[in-house]
Amino acid sequence: MSPGKLFYAQSGGVTAVINTTAAAVIRAAREHPERIAGVVAGRHGILGALAEDLIDTSTLSNDDLRVLEDLPGGVFGSCRFDLEDETRDPAQYERLFEVFAAHDIRFFLYNGGNGSMDTVAKLSAAARRRGYPLVCVGVPKTVDNDLEGTDCSPGFGSAAKYVATSMREAGLDLDAMASRIGRVFVMEVMGRNAGWLAAATALATESEDEPPHIILLPEVLLDEAAFLAQVERTVARIGYCAITVSEGIRTVDGAPVMEQSHDSKGHVQLGGAGQCIARRIHAAFGYKHHWAIPDYLQRAAGHLVSATDHAQACAVGRAAVEFALQGRDGVMAGIRREGEGPYRWSVVPVPVEAIANRERLLPDAFVRADGLHVTPAARAYLRPLIEGERPPRFRGGIPDYPRFVLRPMPQRCAPFRSS
Amino acid sequence: MSPGKLFYAQSGGVTAVINTTAAAVIRAAREHPERIAGVVAGRHGILGALAEDLIDTSTLSNDDLRVLEDLPGGVFGSCRFDLEDETRDPAQYERLFEVFAAHDIRFFLYNGGNGSMDTVAKLSAAARRRGYPLVCVGVPKTVDNDLEGTDCSPGFGSAAKYVATSMREAGLDLDAMASRIGRVFVMEVMGRNAGWLAAATALATESEDEPPHIILLPEVLLDEAAFLAQVERTVARIGYCAITVSEGIRTVDGAPVMEQSHDSKGHVQLGGAGQCIARRIHAAFGYKHHWAIPDYLQRAAGHLVSATDHAQACAVGRAAVEFALQGRDGVMAGIRREGEGPYRWSVVPVPVEAIANRERLLPDAFVRADGLHVTPAARAYLRPLIEGERPPRFRGGIPDYPRFVLRPMPQRCAPFRSS
Repeated sequence: MSPGKLFYAQSGGVTAVINTTAAAVIRAAREHPERIAGVVAGRHGILGALAEDLIDTSTLSNDDLRVLEDLPGGVFGSCRFDLEDETRDPAQYERLFEVFAAHDIRFFLYNGGNGSMDTVAKLSAAARRRGYPLVCVGVPKTVDNDLEGTDCSPGFGSAAKYVATSMREAGLDLDAMASRIGRVFVMEVMGRNAGWLAAATALATESEDEPPHIILLPEVLLDEAAFLAQVERTVARIGYCAITVSEGIRTVDGAPVMEQSHDSKGHVQLGGAGQCIARRIHAAFGYKHHWAIPDYLQRAAGHLVSATDHAQACAVGRAAVEFALQGRDGVMAGIRREGEGPYRWSVVPVPVEAIANRERLLPDAFVRADGLHVTPAARAYLRPLIEGERPPRFRGGIPDYPRFVLRPMPQRCAPFRSS
Repeated sequence: MSPGKLFYAQSGGVTAVINTTAAAVIRAAREHPERIAGVVAGRHGILGALAEDLIDTSTLSNDDLRVLEDLPGGVFGSCRFDLEDETRDPAQYERLFEVFAAHDIRFFLYNGGNGSMDTVAKLSAAARRRGYPLVCVGVPKTVDNDLEGTDCSPGFGSAAKYVATSMREAGLDLDAMASRIGRVFVMEVMGRNAGWLAAATALATESEDEPPHIILLPEVLLDEAAFLAQVERTVARIGYCAITVSEGIRTVDGAPVMEQSHDSKGHVQLGGAGQCIARRIHAAFGYKHHWAIPDYLQRAAGHLVSATDHAQACAVGRAAVEFALQGRDGVMAGIRREGEGPYRWSVVPVPVEAIANRERLLPDAFVRADGLHVTPAARAYLRPLIEGERPPRFRGGIPDYPRFVLRPMPQRCAPFRSS
């Protein structure tokens, strides 16, 4: 059988290491020219396939791949776009397979989170229905670490390293200032429904007498009275209190602790839990209050990549190509923890049905009994994921991130009316 | 004449390199045992002198000083406390000279910003009035870079490196996502009245077609219509817009662009300019809007210290001790730029009267004609200040910042009723 092309695309929020995975996919594919004729990347995820906006990665040199491996952001672009069921929008699927056929695509690798695994599942089923030879494999990525089927998700370890480092350093600053009244510092981190990143700030210290003194998790409905009492006790003992707040926390009524933002379509853009919490403390006690919102900074920090995360981002990319060549259709390249002390892991195929559209929250064993911090078990799980450093090259005082100019491939299909 | 003690303290907001200066002061003093009997540090700035809460730094080993040199925060603690004129609170001065005399203090080094230089001036005058032999020298520090009498201030270069790196990395993330509507990213940086840190984000790129596309400075009253038009043009051209906002920006009416926070004494704690700007853009155009507020993170980032800043923080500490030994009373150890390409600098004594309570704003030549960005002259001034890296040692995935236990010296005076 003649070799076919491999389609690769990035989906959802990008991370500090999603390009690391891209480079690994491209390299692994190049090792099998007898089976893979080349890697075609979709610009902006599955939208690139729909629009036939594709990039021929054979134009990337080995030097380019070395740069790509350490480049934050998403070099091929990403999207937030869910495929409908084929029964609801058959035209989308007709179009996808038209483009796939025109470019002789036989392998489909989609690099994203739980929504992307749903895309993998849908395409796999659609291909089988048509008898189109397409092996579909998911490649995990999410800064929230909420993917089922994998012990951790590439992108998370580096963001965890960033927020733990940030809390450690901010804590030293907070500790320095004398003040007649109490001081609080709140840092809001990503994680809509899952508190993995918030939990990771606990790695700033081994002691709960050091920042962060309190961690507010989405898994724990906020008991405001108990929380404020804990803040007050901490300030009475130490003089200040540092608090990590996950962006997705909710009150006991189930309402988000946030400030709402509606656009004309009614969408709510989350933001403001950290500021809300800081203000409530100030309203209750009059303490000085600061809040930090790293926002994109926590998931784009190429200057603070975790070497463990980097290695895993490579490994899942490489393994995904191998699984595709093995004909393992409808799986994700998941990370399996093999041991601790020292931390060992491997990559295994996991059926996407068990993953698609599901969210993995913090297990109860990771949450302290009072719901305001995490347990030693959580720290033991998290610590190895942030270990190891890969400092970038700097130029003129900032990391040297060369710019890529990626030209689209010539199109072979008629234009598509995108819905 | 027998050797006397040198009093050193830290004042105002701390930085990533104020401890670097402390280590340099202690080391330089130890080289002159015939003149300096030891360095006594005040805990929490001048408050330590008032409360006789003092630390004998002879307890710090050479290993301790090596750790201190690379430790963010303020190891001796800091304060925001301005000395009154002696005519208004003579008791404060009586107390200070009582404590100085009790500990044989003959040199007074105060490490802070423009308020601290006022403290140096006041104490110098008070010592001369009493005939008390005290040489008072100021040691510069401020993340805002708004000190007169020095080409730049220790602490600024590292914070500038941090915000420039952050904007570069966030920009890559912002660039990746496809969206049918425009996207804006706003990053709020420190700098109440001076736009030096905001200007430094321009170092993220050489081109104004890359983030940051717009920089809002406190020196330029915000023309909201012109600003929004620029945002719209940028989004039309690129699809997104990245904006740096200084925390202290004001509208053409002179009102702060902020959200106010009052405590029982009526103090207003600045915060919220970045969020305000993001919301106004969203209200005007419906764009997706994210905002980042690094807050303490930008001035505590020991993992991203500028080697230039570190070298200058050392040099001003060392020079301050030398000026004190030379009897140069009432000066600050200021940095003087000697040349560019390559950047050269020296440390010179500058009379504190020219500095105390004054603020140095961005010169007009650094602000682009439309007020929405900076000029090549600004970039040329700023670039050398962020150059060079000093990565810390890491342990368990975060920077290794050992904890100091500093014991207070035995007191020799009666307790003081602090006002």
